[in-house]
Amino acid sequence: MKVFKLVVAYDGTDFRGWQRQPAGRTVQGALEDALFRVTQKRVAVLGAGRTDAGVHAAGQAASFRASLKLPDADLFRALNAVLPGDVRVLSLAPAAPDFHARRSAVSKTYEYRIVTSRLISPFDFRFALHVPARLNVAAMRRAAALFVREADFSAFTSNREYDPVRRVTRSELRRRGDALVYAIAANGFLRYMVRTIVGTLLEVGRGKLPPEAVETIFAVRDRGLAGPTAPAKGLCLVRVEYGAADRPPL
Amino acid sequence: MKVFKLVVAYDGTDFRGWQRQPAGRTVQGALEDALFRVTQKRVAVLGAGRTDAGVHAAGQAASFRASLKLPDADLFRALNAVLPGDVRVLSLAPAAPDFHARRSAVSKTYEYRIVTSRLISPFDFRFALHVPARLNVAAMRRAAALFVREADFSAFTSNREYDPVRRVTRSELRRRGDALVYAIAANGFLRYMVRTIVGTLLEVGRGKLPPEAVETIFAVRDRGLAGPTAPAKGLCLVRVEYGAADRPPL
Repeated sequence: MKVFKLVVAYDGTDFRGWQRQPAGRTVQGALEDALFRVTQKRVAVLGAGRTDAGVHAAGQAASFRASLKLPDADLFRALNAVLPGDVRVLSLAPAAPDFHARRSAVSKTYEYRIVTSRLISPFDFRFALHVPARLNVAAMRRAAALFVREADFSAFTSNREYDPVRRVTRSELRRRGDALVYAIAANGFLRYMVRTIVGTLLEVGRGKLPPEAVETIFAVRDRGLAGPTAPAKGLCLVRVEYGAADRPPL
Repeated sequence: MKVFKLVVAYDGTDFRGWQRQPAGRTVQGALEDALFRVTQKRVAVLGAGRTDAGVHAAGQAASFRASLKLPDADLFRALNAVLPGDVRVLSLAPAAPDFHARRSAVSKTYEYRIVTSRLISPFDFRFALHVPARLNVAAMRRAAALFVREADFSAFTSNREYDPVRRVTRSELRRRGDALVYAIAANGFLRYMVRTIVGTLLEVGRGKLPPEAVETIFAVRDRGLAGPTAPAKGLCLVRVEYGAADRPPL
């Protein structure tokens, strides 16, 4: 048995999210079906992050365990040949025997794109939220910086979780062309956490909340004080980082 | 009655082409339906080029004739509000009374994108042809230059046409990131003309035809000698040029 690490990119528009479901297209399902077509084995593929329906990935990580006769380079080519065009395996390599895409992850980075121009291109509308409004970007930046902390993020999730403490190591808003790109890195994310933070930043940008409200929301831990959950389409899992855990032993 | 000029962009993937059909989504149909929803009038929208199913546009031009009470700026906003996200009206302005999007056009420019890297991104696969092969780009460039002429293009169309003479004023291949972009401008195009030229350039790039074969194909006017019709997804109508015909009288 060998453990493999995959890096995967997908356009999430036509998927019901990462996680396999009884009905509907999922990314996990597409990968497991492709592995079955190539190897004739039913293998479970574990993702680093279970992205929701409509959320994209430029660098999702995944792992699976199998004993295969096929050389890795052939497996890589064969998977991409049978996968639908909206999912690509960017890399495939053997990993340490105890590598687990989710549990071994040290940090994940998400980006959220907001197009603020009057029109959003038909080539872009699947990948960004369109907010054709004058936003106070300076206030949004001040608010964004307040999310860099180790804290209870209960106010920024729609699920009750056993351990709602996460450590956010980066939270910043930048301009890229006619889009605002919000980037956030953390050791883990609660459900809808990035989209709720973005919804809150948009309230700040529209002047409905002052940047300092973020402090209050953390203190009170009340989901009702944060902004609405921003739509899935603007969100992309761009990178998953591992210590040395994703490398095989020498 | 006033004549209007529109510039329109669309992702052609989920359309059965420009031209309205009894069944199926078309760009013309989407625009006419949007005009009806906004104005309660059934108005015919004429496109400069009748792009085929799957072909995109970054700058298609169109015209229609109507007498409307709505100010132009409101019509512009309302159309984009009711159109599906894969079609955008980029501009809307009054034109000369005799303006006709197709007949008044002086020149059209199409681009065709070919991604030659080993993998094509899931965010790009709707908008480019993937040819993960070593292509002889220098030979393709020499062949591309031979299309700049006024000539009978019968060998590069799948339809018999009454007048198969067209004047190509630009035909060149450039590298843009990990893609080859072929750009062609002409006073008009026969059906499948750009895609057949691209199919022929790909045969040259793969070493199956020498660049000079283009001269022979023009001389013999035999569709069977040209390359296969390249898929629609790589093609985009980028620009339509008019003399002064699209401007209203002073």
